[in-house]
Amino acid sequence: MRVATFSIAGERRVGLVDAEGETIAPFDLSVEAAKGGILGLIERNGALPRTLSPLPLSSVELEAPIPHPRRNIFCVGKNYYEHAHEFARSGFDSSAAAGAIPKDPIIFSKVPESVVATHSKVLIDTKVSSAIDYEAELAVIIGKEGRGISKEDALDHVWGYTIVNDVTARDLQGKYSQWLIGKSQDTFCPMGPWAVTKDEFDLETAGIRCFVNGDMRQNSKISLLIFDIPTIISTLSQGLTLKPGDIIATGTPAGVGIGFNPPKYLKAGDVVRVEIDGIGALENRFSEWAQ
Amino acid sequence: MRVATFSIAGERRVGLVDAEGETIAPFDLSVEAAKGGILGLIERNGALPRTLSPLPLSSVELEAPIPHPRRNIFCVGKNYYEHAHEFARSGFDSSAAAGAIPKDPIIFSKVPESVVATHSKVLIDTKVSSAIDYEAELAVIIGKEGRGISKEDALDHVWGYTIVNDVTARDLQGKYSQWLIGKSQDTFCPMGPWAVTKDEFDLETAGIRCFVNGDMRQNSKISLLIFDIPTIISTLSQGLTLKPGDIIATGTPAGVGIGFNPPKYLKAGDVVRVEIDGIGALENRFSEWAQ
Repeated sequence: MRVATFSIAGERRVGLVDAEGETIAPFDLSVEAAKGGILGLIERNGALPRTLSPLPLSSVELEAPIPHPRRNIFCVGKNYYEHAHEFARSGFDSSAAAGAIPKDPIIFSKVPESVVATHSKVLIDTKVSSAIDYEAELAVIIGKEGRGISKEDALDHVWGYTIVNDVTARDLQGKYSQWLIGKSQDTFCPMGPWAVTKDEFDLETAGIRCFVNGDMRQNSKISLLIFDIPTIISTLSQGLTLKPGDIIATGTPAGVGIGFNPPKYLKAGDVVRVEIDGIGALENRFSEWAQ
Repeated sequence: MRVATFSIAGERRVGLVDAEGETIAPFDLSVEAAKGGILGLIERNGALPRTLSPLPLSSVELEAPIPHPRRNIFCVGKNYYEHAHEFARSGFDSSAAAGAIPKDPIIFSKVPESVVATHSKVLIDTKVSSAIDYEAELAVIIGKEGRGISKEDALDHVWGYTIVNDVTARDLQGKYSQWLIGKSQDTFCPMGPWAVTKDEFDLETAGIRCFVNGDMRQNSKISLLIFDIPTIISTLSQGLTLKPGDIIATGTPAGVGIGFNPPKYLKAGDVVRVEIDGIGALENRFSEWAQ
């Protein structure tokens, strides 16, 4: 099941996207339940609501699946081998003392207000950063509360998956040692285009790719994560209760801008497209910040 | 003005605490507005609501001023000189590559669900951590949205102050490199006992102290922060829009458990009391986690 949050006539709705990605059938959810986007479905007990007549997808405006998460987005750092090496070499890695390849998952956060939808602008404020980079990532959406979750049970707590571009100001990430500031700049968390339920997503075979202005920069497989999804969920939940609607971005493969010499940072006008097999494509244009 | 969030007869209210800390006069706020605690006052435009008849403070149950912040709590690390040195010596400092004294504020976060009230239990899960430590801190409560805030304007964006105990699992803080996991364990953010508006709080003279079972462990002054509050607000807001109700814990002085040799970690039964002049005292008993 592919589920999107969207707005039409100024109202937020949640709908079922067809296999061809051409139509969307709104769920018969209350305005109040739809406010949280797909969280309204995740938190619903029992059967799915019926769907109403499908609309052309082109007639609605997609929003992020959860437009305003209830707490910061959890993110995993340095979770693909080649990326861990390129980042360690970059000089921006304040976690480098721990070695290029982490022994345990590195988890930080992005503020909920950094979330934007596919086709929304990501803003570059050149007064604040001159080293803005992309990071294509698979994001897990938690469906069931849990604490001290074992690896064996971890996938039971997953509702589904979406795509995140973990946009990063490399200069701020390095300068402030802890990564929150460099990761939480306004508009730095494109998410979407929609979410897929876990039964439709194959962690073993899915590829992940990132293109900047059509040029392929990242090309890997979700199966190559250093810490797989059960390990991430188990680690994070040991003493911290995970909640429905929590989002965990699982890390980015090699090929980010900082990995090139000289680095290939993003500039106004660039279009970044992240594709994950079985989900779809998240595409955003970068644009200069204007007061 | 001292403002507390409290519950009585199962309903959340917000009230004005008298100078002696003996009575609380509920504001005439709707149940809906009081749900967010003092956020209901902060977000109200115009005059304060009238207060109803005062109740004995002992007849109500205090809650954290903002019982459930809308996003993670921002926290500043290593922000007093002597503490920065004791932490660097401890071996748990994954930011040590940057030197003991940070050149720029180190900012990380705690999940909103870690917040508990004064006199609530803080839970020690010995299966997860064997190195639980206290950190007495002044917390800033933002009152006015802003981005790119100058140091000169920073205090205009402050609504008031409260006390936070930035409870930390040192072993997890070190192990995971980024500090989120070690800082975000369930119940690890005691906050309160109430908030004071900025006009009543003197940043220049206020002392901060922490006692474990009556034994004074921390004793410093807010004026000794390495990065003062205008600098923290200005740094954090450069590309990240601060919102009313945001909470920023400003760092802890020397004397935390990790600073002793051998370290003095917390155990079930310990009572930690944090006092800040002009605010009051936040006191919590640590207790063993039980499923």
